[in-house]
Amino acid sequence: MKHIIFGESHGNAIGITIENPPAGVKLDWDFINSEMARRAPGNSPLSTPRKEADAVEVLSGVFEGRTTGTPLTAIIRNENTKSKDYTQLKDLPRPSHGDFSGFVRYGGCADYRGGGHFSGRLTAPLVFGGALAKLILQEKGIQVAAEISMIGGTANPSPEEMAEIILQARSEKDSVGGAVRCAITGLPAGCGAPDFGCNVEGIIAQYLFAVPAVKAIAFGAGFQLAAMRGSEANDAFILEDGQIKTATNHAGGVNGGITNGMPVTFEVASRPTPSIARPQQPVSLSRMEVATLEIHGRHDPCIVPRAVVVVEAAAALAACTVLGI
Amino acid sequence: MKHIIFGESHGNAIGITIENPPAGVKLDWDFINSEMARRAPGNSPLSTPRKEADAVEVLSGVFEGRTTGTPLTAIIRNENTKSKDYTQLKDLPRPSHGDFSGFVRYGGCADYRGGGHFSGRLTAPLVFGGALAKLILQEKGIQVAAEISMIGGTANPSPEEMAEIILQARSEKDSVGGAVRCAITGLPAGCGAPDFGCNVEGIIAQYLFAVPAVKAIAFGAGFQLAAMRGSEANDAFILEDGQIKTATNHAGGVNGGITNGMPVTFEVASRPTPSIARPQQPVSLSRMEVATLEIHGRHDPCIVPRAVVVVEAAAALAACTVLGI
Amino acid sequence: MKHIIFGESHGNAIGITIENPPAGVKLDWDFINSEMARRAPGNSPLSTPRKEADAVEVLSGVFEGRTTGTPLTAIIRNENTKSKDYTQLKDLPRPSHGDFSGFVRYGGCADYRGGGHFSGRLTAPLVFGGALAKLILQEKGIQVAAEISMIGGTANPSPEEMAEIILQARSEKDSVGGAVRCAITGLPAGCGAPDFGCNVEGIIAQYLFAVPAVKAIAFGAGFQLAAMRGSEANDAFILEDGQIKTATNHAGGVNGGITNGMPVTFEVASRPTPSIARPQQPVSLSRMEVATLEIHGRHDPCIVPRAVVVVEAAAALAACTVLGI
Amino acid sequence: MKHIIFGESHGNAIGITIENPPAGVKLDWDFINSEMARRAPGNSPLSTPRKEADAVEVLSGVFEGRTTGTPLTAIIRNENTKSKDYTQLKDLPRPSHGDFSGFVRYGGCADYRGGGHFSGRLTAPLVFGGALAKLILQEKGIQVAAEISMIGGTANPSPEEMAEIILQARSEKDSVGGAVRCAITGLPAGCGAPDFGCNVEGIIAQYLFAVPAVKAIAFGAGFQLAAMRGSEANDAFILEDGQIKTATNHAGGVNGGITNGMPVTFEVASRPTPSIARPQQPVSLSRMEVATLEIHGRHDPCIVPRAVVVVEAAAALAACTVLGI
Repeated sequence: MKHIIFGESHGNAIGITIENPPAGVKLDWDFINSEMARRAPGNSPLSTPRKEADAVEVLSGVFEGRTTGTPLTAIIRNENTKSKDYTQLKDLPRPSHGDFSGFVRYGGCADYRGGGHFSGRLTAPLVFGGALAKLILQEKGIQVAAEISMIGGTANPSPEEMAEIILQARSEKDSVGGAVRCAITGLPAGCGAPDFGCNVEGIIAQYLFAVPAVKAIAFGAGFQLAAMRGSEANDAFILEDGQIKTATNHAGGVNGGITNGMPVTFEVASRPTPSIARPQQPVSLSRMEVATLEIHGRHDPCIVPRAVVVVEAAAALAACTVLGI
Repeated sequence: MKHIIFGESHGNAIGITIENPPAGVKLDWDFINSEMARRAPGNSPLSTPRKEADAVEVLSGVFEGRTTGTPLTAIIRNENTKSKDYTQLKDLPRPSHGDFSGFVRYGGCADYRGGGHFSGRLTAPLVFGGALAKLILQEKGIQVAAEISMIGGTANPSPEEMAEIILQARSEKDSVGGAVRCAITGLPAGCGAPDFGCNVEGIIAQYLFAVPAVKAIAFGAGFQLAAMRGSEANDAFILEDGQIKTATNHAGGVNGGITNGMPVTFEVASRPTPSIARPQQPVSLSRMEVATLEIHGRHDPCIVPRAVVVVEAAAALAACTVLGI
Repeated sequence: MKHIIFGESHGNAIGITIENPPAGVKLDWDFINSEMARRAPGNSPLSTPRKEADAVEVLSGVFEGRTTGTPLTAIIRNENTKSKDYTQLKDLPRPSHGDFSGFVRYGGCADYRGGGHFSGRLTAPLVFGGALAKLILQEKGIQVAAEISMIGGTANPSPEEMAEIILQARSEKDSVGGAVRCAITGLPAGCGAPDFGCNVEGIIAQYLFAVPAVKAIAFGAGFQLAAMRGSEANDAFILEDGQIKTATNHAGGVNGGITNGMPVTFEVASRPTPSIARPQQPVSLSRMEVATLEIHGRHDPCIVPRAVVVVEAAAALAACTVLGI
Repeated sequence: MKHIIFGESHGNAIGITIENPPAGVKLDWDFINSEMARRAPGNSPLSTPRKEADAVEVLSGVFEGRTTGTPLTAIIRNENTKSKDYTQLKDLPRPSHGDFSGFVRYGGCADYRGGGHFSGRLTAPLVFGGALAKLILQEKGIQVAAEISMIGGTANPSPEEMAEIILQARSEKDSVGGAVRCAITGLPAGCGAPDFGCNVEGIIAQYLFAVPAVKAIAFGAGFQLAAMRGSEANDAFILEDGQIKTATNHAGGVNGGITNGMPVTFEVASRPTPSIARPQQPVSLSRMEVATLEIHGRHDPCIVPRAVVVVEAAAALAACTVLGI
């Protein structure tokens, strides 16, 4: 179910084109809209005050409420854009943003307003695609669920801890990173292959690294495996209701690049939002000298709370690919 | 430079087919053989006693010592195979190996001897492919270098520490995991794109997860970013000899999925070898009941020392893809 | 420059998403609109009276009049749709249309109105994509030009002959087929490869067979080569202004799957429009019996005149792929 | 079932790597060898006297006589090579061969001996791949059969006519072209899609154009459709044993890029062998002047008789792709 996400933060519209979804999938708009709402900004003191309606218009590939099986394009019009906030970025790429690398890659032609095609806003059509993927997976008994596993160094924070960490960072004109853990349950054993381009971890990783700010992914026990003995890491087989399962799941549901029937589990690290209000030192591209930059746009001090549904969306699309959908 | 790695541990041969390498690359056999030797087993008390000549025969795609630009296939004949060691595996998939998931995936048709296509032996043709990739990259001033970052929980172990940890595990009929960090230096800024399938982290991850035992990958500061503030994580721009660089490299050389000219750095976690000599509890597929298994094959108590060149090989092939080669 | 064309004849919009066009291409709207006009219906007594504004709206990937290098989506809203003309098609697939094969493929979920995703209307976004491709090629000195080579069995018809043949067919409630020949000039020698997926003829063919109604493609002398001797078919080398060329071009500019610097020439056959006004015998899917169908929609008695620019568009996109764009 | 064909005419070996064949396919070697024999040279006065054992060695992907489902590589060692015949080709590319275009493409690094990677000999591993594909298709009731439809301008020649035409050409130190028609029967309705990259004609064309010497492909009535009326070309639906079929098959079993359940039929044109014994005028690459070349290698005066099984092989592999195998 190949997809292309298009659009720029301050352009006409953002959207997704899904090449060949299965036919006959009923679009449950209550569900889709609830997924969009989970990502939408402006709903919480923890996120950017930019309000977006994020109303999805399906242009093609849906007939009488169901997918036709032919390419599906869905768009979200951009509104409430404050382009003038960003004009200085044309010459002053922000540290740790895609401004500089994108300037080189696109020969200075990229739309620099609001991060352009690099904007976190592009995750809105991803969430739409993920919602569709979840509807497809649901019929097969497959569920995708993620949760925050870390905020600013605090593991498994309570809501109160999370709010405190984020608001503290905002008050200091700063931002914080975090991590999200995710599980795909119900995937049958025997999906994937050990080979390059076919193995389950590689497929999922490719989807997750296309999510802005994700810098690391770890399956099962992840980096803890580097400290384990084999006798500890090995997942002993057990029989449960006549099904072959494993007592532990340090492998994250994947052996040799192939699902083993256990939940596919992984964790991703999300870097702190690079846009912070305190002054930073970019380089002026025109003058080739270090300058000073204060970013006055509207930004999240921590994108992790809104990233949970985005991680699920990427995982759901990956699961479809793993299943050959 | 699409490639397919083929072969089974105890079949006729293992090898690699590289679809379209650039033409005119001189095969420096001293270098290639030295790379093969870095991976070869039997050279150290820390590794499996299985000795392999690993003599590479190039079947196609090389003429008068240089690549022709047409598909290149290189093979390594299998010798010194002790197939009888493995017959019990047909019914008793080993915990945390690909035996069970592969049994389901391939309908019981996979070659179970010595791990078959899942064997770590398949990394030999990968190292050959990586050596070719390094020769290509070298001409462009790009280097790939990896080193052990952890063995059995000890960070940056000295050779003595490493030997002690591994030999201790072996003496206890056990194995240990570890981690490898890698840097690709010299990649120009502007390679990649933020989009799915094009972003540099996703491309590299796909290559690394095709390496057996790799369960996690982290770019730049990786999971530490989940504990950082933006003001700490952001890599400030600096000018160095008229070049735009960054003072730190927490981003691992990639912003927005695109290289920024700094070294592309990442770390991978490698799980402990699942084959350990102490008794384990697999499930008998024929009797569907928990059984007991003692593995008497020749196995590495820790594959990490031999994995360093394998990680480099995967990274070198990934770097070629990032460059559009 | 991977693309996906989406939309249905009577849906909200049709369009194209182009994944990664080169950055910095100036959109010459006079040229683009003139290309769209060459395909637009309702401009001639020879075509369907359905009038379409075909106004293209670019949603993404263009900034300050130039491509950004990030995914470009362009859409055309559907207007002037007369859906009720088509309701009987739900049960009665039209002979030689995609109705029946599409019914099986999409499990009855496809949008049957006006041919849905199979409609010739979907060639409008293809022409937009082709116009962009031509602008890219133009900067490299590459031109794509097609012309009608046959209408209803008459080779190289004059405008008068063409009009007579088509109007005669219409007056008899029938349609006629034809052929289009095309040349891509300026492609440098050395593009492509003999291998599957890389050879120039295979790449071009794949683009052309995605054009509705195209059923055959022949490069150079095409099927006439089956009647030739080698001494006749071989294109003798000559030197022209210090350049290696060939005296004839029976190979259509491609040897061994690789361009040789001569114009890449091919001809495609376009079947007669299957929608004709005279009664036909479809099968009723609900009753599984032969029925009678009279098609009262607005259809072209011959699509070949409008197909010329469509063939050019497909060829231009193919040429970009051949060039690695 | 992605494949890569590798090798050069006078290199160590030629072969095929098939990435992910279905598991459990029994290799019927009597059948495979009979297919190889159909292509093998030296069996008839009509073909090149070069004798080749064409003994296939499977290196991987087969265990206990069945495919394992992991990558399968099969090779054929090159023997009986007369390399000295070809040394003059290094400077003198032969007209209408891939010598010149390949020289440009591969920067003079290609193996020029015996046509190198461009040699018709590379069709041997293709026939092996096709034989495997036929074994897969057979289990699904799908057959692929081709026959000569034209030799040197004579349609449907009898064996005597064919021999006369070919021997006459040989006696005149010349060669002749021809055509092959092919049918794939048993493909279910509903395979493929109208979209680029997915449509059945485009998929099949891509496989056939990877066969050396093929310059044109026509589905169903092919170029005759350019002379037809819609009322004549349309394939009327009929019911046969409760199955929806068509009375004629001018569409060649494909409507809208999707199979309709009728046999998929096509014809390909094969150009005359460019290597002819009579003197020709190549250009000397070193001196950049027109030279004279007499080709003394062993060549077929007409490859069409041996091409029949090659066309079937390409079609069988294409049918697997169409089926998603």
